[in-house]
Amino acid sequence: MIDPIKSIEYSDGKLRFIDQRLLPGELAYIATGDYRQIIAAIKSLAIRGAPAIGIAAGFAVALAVDRLPEKVSLTEALAEIADSRPTAVNLGWAVERQRKIIKSVTTSGEPKLKELLLGEARKIHEEDQEMCLRIGAAGADLLPQAGAVLTICNTGALATGGIGTALGAIYTAVEQGKNIEVYACETRPALQGARLTVWELQRAGIPVTLLVDSAAGILLKSGKIDCVIVGADRIARNGDTANKIGAYPLATMAARHDVPFYVAAPESTFDRNLEAIDDDLVELRGAEEIVGVSGSQSSPAGTRVFAPAFDITPRELISAYITDQGVHRGGRQQGSGDG
Amino acid sequence: MIDPIKSIEYSDGKLRFIDQRLLPGELAYIATGDYRQIIAAIKSLAIRGAPAIGIAAGFAVALAVDRLPEKVSLTEALAEIADSRPTAVNLGWAVERQRKIIKSVTTSGEPKLKELLLGEARKIHEEDQEMCLRIGAAGADLLPQAGAVLTICNTGALATGGIGTALGAIYTAVEQGKNIEVYACETRPALQGARLTVWELQRAGIPVTLLVDSAAGILLKSGKIDCVIVGADRIARNGDTANKIGAYPLATMAARHDVPFYVAAPESTFDRNLEAIDDDLVELRGAEEIVGVSGSQSSPAGTRVFAPAFDITPRELISAYITDQGVHRGGRQQGSGDG
Repeated sequence: MIDPIKSIEYSDGKLRFIDQRLLPGELAYIATGDYRQIIAAIKSLAIRGAPAIGIAAGFAVALAVDRLPEKVSLTEALAEIADSRPTAVNLGWAVERQRKIIKSVTTSGEPKLKELLLGEARKIHEEDQEMCLRIGAAGADLLPQAGAVLTICNTGALATGGIGTALGAIYTAVEQGKNIEVYACETRPALQGARLTVWELQRAGIPVTLLVDSAAGILLKSGKIDCVIVGADRIARNGDTANKIGAYPLATMAARHDVPFYVAAPESTFDRNLEAIDDDLVELRGAEEIVGVSGSQSSPAGTRVFAPAFDITPRELISAYITDQGVHRGGRQQGSGDG
Repeated sequence: MIDPIKSIEYSDGKLRFIDQRLLPGELAYIATGDYRQIIAAIKSLAIRGAPAIGIAAGFAVALAVDRLPEKVSLTEALAEIADSRPTAVNLGWAVERQRKIIKSVTTSGEPKLKELLLGEARKIHEEDQEMCLRIGAAGADLLPQAGAVLTICNTGALATGGIGTALGAIYTAVEQGKNIEVYACETRPALQGARLTVWELQRAGIPVTLLVDSAAGILLKSGKIDCVIVGADRIARNGDTANKIGAYPLATMAARHDVPFYVAAPESTFDRNLEAIDDDLVELRGAEEIVGVSGSQSSPAGTRVFAPAFDITPRELISAYITDQGVHRGGRQQGSGDG
């Protein structure tokens, strides 16, 4: 029985979540009833992963009600929460769900409002857990009976309220008795692959091998990898997918070597209002994530950086989208690789 | 007048070189007359860059003569030096030059032999300096009057006995009055780009921007980059090029976005005995370079790694080879990009 770690839960008036900045060295939790601490945790990547951010945002809105006596406008709080990370569609989506709850409340009693918002946040969390299980089931069908899967970033229990998206498919396949080993790209600059995916899979007893992101080319060429499976932060109507920086070259190398490239994400990641994704909208992160690797200074002080958090993988490079509603075909034809 | 740092020189019976493991934090030199310390420096990447390794190997052979009274066989020493890094062709090439000197000596006097070997090592060094200048001149012609160049690893004064290969072209272009800014891939796992290229270019007053290796995809897509220029560790007869891990996906992304991809290397990098390069021959490095980034632990203890030091860029992805004998056409046609 697979039993991935529970990374986020609400109880006793507080949201309790793993401080993922400290992994793998230390497994420590932050418990807070202050919505501004949740915003800070999202900004600092203590909480990360689009679905987990959505859950945290849902609870943050509910907890913001506590600040109303201090004359914090709920509208301002909603905007503040929605702006804490620019690219994760789940964030805006969760805030939007809470906005509807607020609008629907005709009684002005604050305790009642908070209860309703907490209820909706819990619902977002439960839906996320079920969504993970459905993505896992759909994705597991695409994985081989025995083989190797390459992934980037962390899309597992640490990124969601459940078993994860791309890693959820792997957990489910393993539970079905499939013999899967995982190759994990370390995922610069924040090293979610090295720090989180390796830790999470080792803990679950799934064999995992770490590589630097730029070694994916020679690995995909080697024929050792049966498929690549990644998550997504936002998918436009045309199928173009915003994802962790490096997903785009990974998809390009997978296509070159005829290795299927799957995107696993909840349907809520599809942004129906967005026809295509403009590279110029990609979130740029601060220099410190690059010049200080794991806290030590790796390049000279004052180094100028280009630090996009995401890149866009066009639909033509995606073999299939795995969602909680099943598998949708991508734009890539099998057998179109050059190498 | 460009004046890149002098990274390696022989004087007073000792080889003096920068300990590049300490950069950019500290500029410290190692001076040694012991050939085994030079081997250790090559293995530990204190000395790195194919041309610099060749120079160090030449002096190491000369210094090994001092051990003859202790019954170290010169043949063994030559083998030991040649084996210190498996992929750099300059290493075997420098050792081979010294082997010829040894064979040509009919007098058995050791002081004489050492003098001859030192003379040959100095010649290797001087030839390298001139080679850099010639590559620089040939490469500068391919750079725009004003524009941005993307590179990986360190191919400058720190990698050679002169101004460098790929960076040599940039230094020369800047000296000619061209307005060049450089984008430097950080180059995981050993971070030669972040640690060395940024440091070296800043010191020379050339604008430089750092990025994680996997951000090269979105950068090349942006249209900001006029060309990519990289070094090489070994070039086979068919034009396939062994280079720092990550050069292969970089060349793939450059081709996709119609950005010229140049390989700058001395003619001695062409291995005329090698028809093609087999991925299976690529040097695999230890786990510690990946799991401990800059000395701090980024993934759990005992993490299994896939750590190739190099990958192979096929000739079809290379626009041109820039050598000390001019520019050779690569296998890539301009205008063949997909994106």
